[in-house]
Amino acid sequence: MGLSYENGIESEPLFDPNILKALDFSKSKVIFDPPISVIDPGENLKVRPLCSGDYDRGYLKLLSFLTKVGDISRKQFLDRFHAMSSCKGMHYITVIEDTVSGQIIGSATLAVEQKFIHDAGFRGRLEDVVVSDEYRGRQLGKLLVETIRLLAEHVGCYKITLDCRDRMVKFYKQLGFQLEEGNSNFMTVRFQD
Amino acid sequence: MGLSYENGIESEPLFDPNILKALDFSKSKVIFDPPISVIDPGENLKVRPLCSGDYDRGYLKLLSFLTKVGDISRKQFLDRFHAMSSCKGMHYITVIEDTVSGQIIGSATLAVEQKFIHDAGFRGRLEDVVVSDEYRGRQLGKLLVETIRLLAEHVGCYKITLDCRDRMVKFYKQLGFQLEEGNSNFMTVRFQD
Repeated sequence: MGLSYENGIESEPLFDPNILKALDFSKSKVIFDPPISVIDPGENLKVRPLCSGDYDRGYLKLLSFLTKVGDISRKQFLDRFHAMSSCKGMHYITVIEDTVSGQIIGSATLAVEQKFIHDAGFRGRLEDVVVSDEYRGRQLGKLLVETIRLLAEHVGCYKITLDCRDRMVKFYKQLGFQLEEGNSNFMTVRFQD
Repeated sequence: MGLSYENGIESEPLFDPNILKALDFSKSKVIFDPPISVIDPGENLKVRPLCSGDYDRGYLKLLSFLTKVGDISRKQFLDRFHAMSSCKGMHYITVIEDTVSGQIIGSATLAVEQKFIHDAGFRGRLEDVVVSDEYRGRQLGKLLVETIRLLAEHVGCYKITLDCRDRMVKFYKQLGFQLEEGNSNFMTVRFQD
C-alpha cells in the first residue's frame, strides 16, 4: 500500500511514511473496539505524514479548531514545512485524510527534543491533537495518540510527555499517560495571546 | 567584550553569542540584589552559549547533578552538538563558565518548537536548569531562568513553558511563570528509566 501523493513536489511527505507502517499495534495496550490501526484506520480514511500539498487539503482549517492559527500564506506554510523537514527526526506531524473528500480531518504531532542527558537521548512531546467534529465517535483521537506514543518509542525517545487541561486528564490516563507524584506541573509565560 | 573561545574548531558556539548580549535586562521585572545580568553575572563568571569544547570543561558532569547522563564519548557529544547547531534557531543551551577554573558551573536550555498554529509560531521551553552546588547563593539559577525567558521573547516565541516539580513551583512563580487555571498538568509515559 503506497501513498498516492507522489506526483510532484506538492506531495512531499514531512517524514518517511514507512515509519508509520512499521509501528507494531499488536504491542499496544490500548483497546480499540472495533479494532483499528495506522494501516486500517476505518473506511475511506488514511493515516500518513503531513504532506506539503496539505495546505490545499484543509490542514490549517483543522488546526483552527484547536487554537488560533492566523492567516498563513502558501509560502509561509511551505517555508515552515521545509524548515521542519530539514531538521531530520524532530517533527513527526501525522494526519488522517478522508480519501473521499480529500480533506485532512485529524492531526497529532510528535515533537522530538535532542538532549545531552539520558545518554544524549531524545525526549518526545505529544502536541496539537485534533479531530474534526464530524468524525467523532470513530476512535480517531485515541488512534492518533496511540500512534504518536508508539512512534516516540520506535524512534528511541526515553519518554514522551504532554501538556494537558484538567478535563482531558482522564482521556490520557486511559491511554497510559500518568500524572507523576510531585512532578506534574507545567507553568507558562505568555508573550502573545 | 568578545568570547575567548575562537581559536579553532573546539571553540564553536552552539548559537550566535551576540544574541545573549542583545538581551535587555532593563526590561526584566525580576529583581537581582546585588544587580547581575548576562553581561555582568558576577566576579570571574561568564554567560555564553554552550561551545563544542565544553566536553572538556565539565559540562556533562554538571548535567549529572540534574539527572542520569551516562557515559557519553567525545564523538557522541560532538555529533549531538552538530546535530543541534545544524537545526538553526532551535537549541539555545546557555552556560555559565567560571573563568578561573575554566569549568562550566551552570546551564539552562531554551528549546524551540516550530509550529503551524499561532501564525506558524515558535513555542519555547525552559529545560535542564542546573547550577553547581558550590555556586549557590549567587542568584545564578535566577539569572539563567531570566536569561532564557528574555531569550524566548527575543527570538519571537509566543510563549515559554516549563515542566516543574511541586517543590520548584514557588521559585518559578517569582520569576513570572504561572500555573494557568485548568491547564497546568503535564503527563508522562516513560520508555526507559
